[in-house]
Amino acid sequence: MPRMPERPFISLLTDFGLDTAPAVCRGVMLSISPEARISDLTHNVRKFAVRDGAFLLQSALPYQPVGIHVAVVDPGVGTSRRPIAIRTGRGDILVGPDNGLLPPAAERLGGVAEAREATNRALFREPVSSTFHARDIFSPVAAHLSVGAPFEGVGPVIGTDALERLPWPVARVERGSFQTAVLFIDSFGNCRLAGTRQELAEAVSGLEDGLRLRVTAGDRTVTLRWVPSFGHVAPGEPLLYDDADYDGPALGVNQGSAARHFGLALDAPVRVAPA
Amino acid sequence: MPRMPERPFISLLTDFGLDTAPAVCRGVMLSISPEARISDLTHNVRKFAVRDGAFLLQSALPYQPVGIHVAVVDPGVGTSRRPIAIRTGRGDILVGPDNGLLPPAAERLGGVAEAREATNRALFREPVSSTFHARDIFSPVAAHLSVGAPFEGVGPVIGTDALERLPWPVARVERGSFQTAVLFIDSFGNCRLAGTRQELAEAVSGLEDGLRLRVTAGDRTVTLRWVPSFGHVAPGEPLLYDDADYDGPALGVNQGSAARHFGLALDAPVRVAPA
Amino acid sequence: MPRMPERPFISLLTDFGLDTAPAVCRGVMLSISPEARISDLTHNVRKFAVRDGAFLLQSALPYQPVGIHVAVVDPGVGTSRRPIAIRTGRGDILVGPDNGLLPPAAERLGGVAEAREATNRALFREPVSSTFHARDIFSPVAAHLSVGAPFEGVGPVIGTDALERLPWPVARVERGSFQTAVLFIDSFGNCRLAGTRQELAEAVSGLEDGLRLRVTAGDRTVTLRWVPSFGHVAPGEPLLYDDADYDGPALGVNQGSAARHFGLALDAPVRVAPA
Repeated sequence: MPRMPERPFISLLTDFGLDTAPAVCRGVMLSISPEARISDLTHNVRKFAVRDGAFLLQSALPYQPVGIHVAVVDPGVGTSRRPIAIRTGRGDILVGPDNGLLPPAAERLGGVAEAREATNRALFREPVSSTFHARDIFSPVAAHLSVGAPFEGVGPVIGTDALERLPWPVARVERGSFQTAVLFIDSFGNCRLAGTRQELAEAVSGLEDGLRLRVTAGDRTVTLRWVPSFGHVAPGEPLLYDDADYDGPALGVNQGSAARHFGLALDAPVRVAPA
Repeated sequence: MPRMPERPFISLLTDFGLDTAPAVCRGVMLSISPEARISDLTHNVRKFAVRDGAFLLQSALPYQPVGIHVAVVDPGVGTSRRPIAIRTGRGDILVGPDNGLLPPAAERLGGVAEAREATNRALFREPVSSTFHARDIFSPVAAHLSVGAPFEGVGPVIGTDALERLPWPVARVERGSFQTAVLFIDSFGNCRLAGTRQELAEAVSGLEDGLRLRVTAGDRTVTLRWVPSFGHVAPGEPLLYDDADYDGPALGVNQGSAARHFGLALDAPVRVAPA
Repeated sequence: MPRMPERPFISLLTDFGLDTAPAVCRGVMLSISPEARISDLTHNVRKFAVRDGAFLLQSALPYQPVGIHVAVVDPGVGTSRRPIAIRTGRGDILVGPDNGLLPPAAERLGGVAEAREATNRALFREPVSSTFHARDIFSPVAAHLSVGAPFEGVGPVIGTDALERLPWPVARVERGSFQTAVLFIDSFGNCRLAGTRQELAEAVSGLEDGLRLRVTAGDRTVTLRWVPSFGHVAPGEPLLYDDADYDGPALGVNQGSAARHFGLALDAPVRVAPA
């Protein structure tokens, strides 16, 4: 049973940018849930990049209080994609489109306890527009839930297996090397790799600062080092490091773009082995 | 009589961008009104573009709780333009410069119930600078009002007709066509047209998805379609659609700029007729 | 003894930009201090520009309520630079890296009453990463202090003289002229000069609008005027004015960049004398 604080916590992540759309969503929510504390996670997700949104959401939510989390990166708005709400093992509720944006975050919040299609128009704002579901569906559903509307009243249950999922690379150890892939590329071109620092450490039998590693990525195989931060290698040189912002190993280039240096896009395979 | 919630709601819209000026205004307000909930509508209004600010304010405020709304796009700061406060029919109070920024929003919040010039220096922050009235006049006046200072104490009444107004195009039906004009151009070059979707529907005897329309705008007359969203036409093709962000009909170009395609500036006339 | 309000006020200034890092810090703080009111001062400080951050912090904080203020511009994260907390004469607590970022703001809030190195890991978030101390050290320390953790428990006292300080130009009157230097360059290229308007007025025996002054800056000596705002000189012309955003005299160029016009960088000397 989700246990919400006295003053409910609502977070908001979108690709809406710097204009008034996020404030319109917050206004709709505050009109329904005047005591809500609303925190903008970011509105700077690359436009329509559902995978980027899913990555950023799952990396930011574990640090937020238990609450209601609205996420909207929704190129399919106005089509038949379903609006959904997911209750997590930790007691949060995620609200957004059924396009793969929410499940990775749910996994990091204790897993999907229950998912429902949002069909109950009593929780919507009327009239519902064809292109601003953040304002007319997701925000009001979240706000009503935050003031005690029962999760069961959102709409019919969706089987966990029936939720849309995005391709999401995983890492594995194979023939003594770490087989991973690009999970996210940040605005500098740094490539966050699938898997955890611990998994990488196991694969290469221990990670210590300065360790030399052989990395095959895109069209290159290079020898580089595991270092604590960019300044430990020369400008233009690649490095592997623990990306604290996004909690995992990443491939970078000091004062450059690893994505360009190696010719990498999302999901491109990367192999790391002892040098 | 405006009825404010226990914890007053204050919104803030400016052209100050991403630096510290908005936080300085919020700090001044919170120092006077510690329980205020302050929501930034946007600080990304095009610099000194009063008309853009007025448009964005009137489109965002109907979704906000009743409250005090501070808006500052103020190229005339330091000249003789008056600081004003407007009480609306809905019970909000708008605070900002008397340069046309506030009246369109007041109209959408139940009309101007009463306007006053802000002259009572007891509500100001001293010393009042010559260029940062947002910090020294508008924010403190708003904050004092939010904690119960009487609206009548702001300063002398200004007749509604004496408020500065901006050119603000309206739409009308004429000879079986919809005569409108460009009300706002967003950062993509989409042109929001004056009038409502309902008025357009009346003018062309019903709007259904895919309806072909003849549009004269700038130096072109083209035939295009009324569609639910950009993806319904080919890249580079123009379309008419219902702009949910800004609640009205808009002229766009898929993956392009309608303003550039048609050569349109603010207030440029646009004619829409059945094809 | 710092006296905090019922609902503690926390401000946050960083160079993290528009992504999720600020929200992660706020989430960490709200998880510890659920009633905190958190205000983002800006996250748009030029990356790694400690001096810019120090300037913006000391210009914004005097307008904020007494509270806990977290500031993070920290190119030395992961090195031996110390995390610190400073109690001010006004009763605030500043939390951030010991790299010179905090002292100028402390001076404007009543001076450094006491500084302590943050060593008490009970106030940290574990595990502490090597590069995201904002999340793992500064935010949780601030949040614990905001809910009543004693300042004395942060760690050992640091003598005020042992705090890292940045070069910080001061102005002085010398041979009838105002000897100053560039303290901050804003994104338009306007150069805020060291010293106050009052000091400048004393140096040139009174400042009135339109006063002609002789300015030597970079590789130029020019005659210009003290004016209330940019519009009082022709486009491309330099001016001296009172920068209300940053509370002091500044050198600008109407519709241009004073930094480029005069060839100025931080700390470059500027001399102002009666013309």
